[in-house]
Amino acid sequence: MIAKKMVKYVEGSSVTRAMFEEGKKMAKKFGAENVYDFSLGNPSVEPPKAVSKAIKEVIEEDTPNYVHGYMNNSGYEEVRSAIADSLNKKFGTSFNEKNIIMTVGAAGGLNVILKTLLDPGDEVIAFAPYFGEYNNYVANFDGKMVVVSPNPPTFQPNLKEFEEKITDKTKAVIVNTPNNPTGVVYSEETIKNIADILNKKQKEFGTSIYLIADEPYRELAYDGVDVPYLTKFYDNTIVGYSYSKSLSLPGERIGYLVIPNEVDDFENVINAASIANRILGFVNAPSLIQLAVAKCLDETTDITTYDTNRKLLYNKLTELGMECVKPDGAFYLWVKTLEPDDSAFVAKAKKYNLLLVPGSAFMCPGYVRIAYCVDTDMIKRSFDSFEKLAAEYSN
Amino acid sequence: MIAKKMVKYVEGSSVTRAMFEEGKKMAKKFGAENVYDFSLGNPSVEPPKAVSKAIKEVIEEDTPNYVHGYMNNSGYEEVRSAIADSLNKKFGTSFNEKNIIMTVGAAGGLNVILKTLLDPGDEVIAFAPYFGEYNNYVANFDGKMVVVSPNPPTFQPNLKEFEEKITDKTKAVIVNTPNNPTGVVYSEETIKNIADILNKKQKEFGTSIYLIADEPYRELAYDGVDVPYLTKFYDNTIVGYSYSKSLSLPGERIGYLVIPNEVDDFENVINAASIANRILGFVNAPSLIQLAVAKCLDETTDITTYDTNRKLLYNKLTELGMECVKPDGAFYLWVKTLEPDDSAFVAKAKKYNLLLVPGSAFMCPGYVRIAYCVDTDMIKRSFDSFEKLAAEYSN
Repeated sequence: MIAKKMVKYVEGSSVTRAMFEEGKKMAKKFGAENVYDFSLGNPSVEPPKAVSKAIKEVIEEDTPNYVHGYMNNSGYEEVRSAIADSLNKKFGTSFNEKNIIMTVGAAGGLNVILKTLLDPGDEVIAFAPYFGEYNNYVANFDGKMVVVSPNPPTFQPNLKEFEEKITDKTKAVIVNTPNNPTGVVYSEETIKNIADILNKKQKEFGTSIYLIADEPYRELAYDGVDVPYLTKFYDNTIVGYSYSKSLSLPGERIGYLVIPNEVDDFENVINAASIANRILGFVNAPSLIQLAVAKCLDETTDITTYDTNRKLLYNKLTELGMECVKPDGAFYLWVKTLEPDDSAFVAKAKKYNLLLVPGSAFMCPGYVRIAYCVDTDMIKRSFDSFEKLAAEYSN
Repeated sequence: MIAKKMVKYVEGSSVTRAMFEEGKKMAKKFGAENVYDFSLGNPSVEPPKAVSKAIKEVIEEDTPNYVHGYMNNSGYEEVRSAIADSLNKKFGTSFNEKNIIMTVGAAGGLNVILKTLLDPGDEVIAFAPYFGEYNNYVANFDGKMVVVSPNPPTFQPNLKEFEEKITDKTKAVIVNTPNNPTGVVYSEETIKNIADILNKKQKEFGTSIYLIADEPYRELAYDGVDVPYLTKFYDNTIVGYSYSKSLSLPGERIGYLVIPNEVDDFENVINAASIANRILGFVNAPSLIQLAVAKCLDETTDITTYDTNRKLLYNKLTELGMECVKPDGAFYLWVKTLEPDDSAFVAKAKKYNLLLVPGSAFMCPGYVRIAYCVDTDMIKRSFDSFEKLAAEYSN
């Protein structure tokens, strides 16, 4: 009786659920401390203390009908203005509140901008490996996903193939840097090349191609690596941001879109996006937490734990002879599987109580994603299992 | 460059925005206290004190990663369980946490269930007048809206026409009681008749027709009027609820769906709805506020102010010879316009600084909606303007 489109989702999700249930069973059987769950991108580091302080302040200082009431569908003007100022200070941009739409996380923001832009059949390009939900978001609006093949071992995008795959139906390109699942940060050179290709193709086809920068991991970059701000390189850039990882608030569903004045058809895009926020059923980003994050714009969750985990895991798995991409950002380690079939590898890992996500989930078989946003101690305890797993392939 | 579907929305919304901007200009010109804005369903009564107390308790008592972290896409189990228990106590139902999905308000819930159920071309029936956003929600999934004509003067649904309009493509029926915009509460007799018709038609066509009860105004009922709980009358009922009005939290976007065990294809519907919550970009209802409302399940905003406003306005306008539906619930007064063209009437009202919403916005020309979730004093101050407006038609 459910919609035909939903049937395949239900079937697919029952596989994931089975895995999840098995994880729970394993925890019961072996003890939670003996199961090494690296499957979820759920921040292990606490939000900065400033967040709960800000929430209390908002409740105490503002009137309840302001804090919990309706505001403009795009969000409180004061919040949007504060975010614009903060971005300008960080990146030398010149946004104002009109360029910002508060959204229900980055997932909400992506759906809003795709609803705004896509006619059925329009093409959206993404570089594999990428977050599998993009497929669903694009399908929500009957868009067509066009996948550029993975580019090992650097996993910087394959720009030759990218250029070849742009057509007169290409409406948007989604980039995600720092990247889930690889941890790779796109270099300034990469960004410039993408911009050059897009400008050339826009001219060739007489179209507008929007570059959507999905940036939930922006603040999670290590060793001082620079994460270029994409609006400065290409006019038709729209940024989707989330506080899920930077402030460890994934449950709160709070983020924003930046739609710069320079994008083609700016007035229509900004108005349509605000309306899309409403008619998709978000209505507006949650109110109290909007006001709270506006007080925490200079805060970031403490990433030293992630950095410690990153080094521990990278060094250990490399030592065991596994081919890993050294992550410059995010909290994922991207590892080549020791046999071509990543699902078989994941199944073998599970024998040693290691829960990993197969690369196929990111349109890139032959790899696994290891989420290291976990307790450092768990990582240390898991080494024995990784050793056994590696040993299984060395015989 | 925006999607073709969005063009008409942008055009339509610029009219609304123009009205809104004019309201702001009027406030500047005449003084805010001399402009009578009855256009918005934004609660004027404060949330119960228990809400901010609950928010503080949650922050102080639970760990930050629990309060602000990911949970099951359907919401925290403890919250869903508490809501199920509370419903069972109130309505003698027998739900458990599996029947509850926490949603980003009722708007989020409606989009989730429509995504779950609708194939393109499926028909959804609603009784005019109804909340205009239903049209957009159904269009999001390429469903076809089928409108049953208004039934004055009681505005209980026109059941003869309803029965005639059900086809083998009818997938869902949306009812909203207490009703926006009429304030009418559907009687138990009406609900029973709707159930009988639906059962008969399901049998005739061999289909499942889901009754979607949109219930944000459930707690706003006056004079002890009973608002029947629909799952008890018809097996294929799904309830969408919101705390926006009952706890005056419209900005927080918090509500839930009830999907009873008795609905056809239960397992698939509940699983698909949880997935729809994720892939539409909601991911989950905002976390902190989920935990907070679970502590306020026996609380309701103080509706005495709304009741006072209701009587004041109803008595005054009736006295002026206007034909009003006496509202049993919600916070809207539904008034027949003194000329057939409701937009012309709204324009004349504006001359006296009265901001009203034309019935056409609710698929019912010839009426206006007056939202009385405002300061009681404003209502009193507005009487002079209503008198002048009425006088204009008595000459």
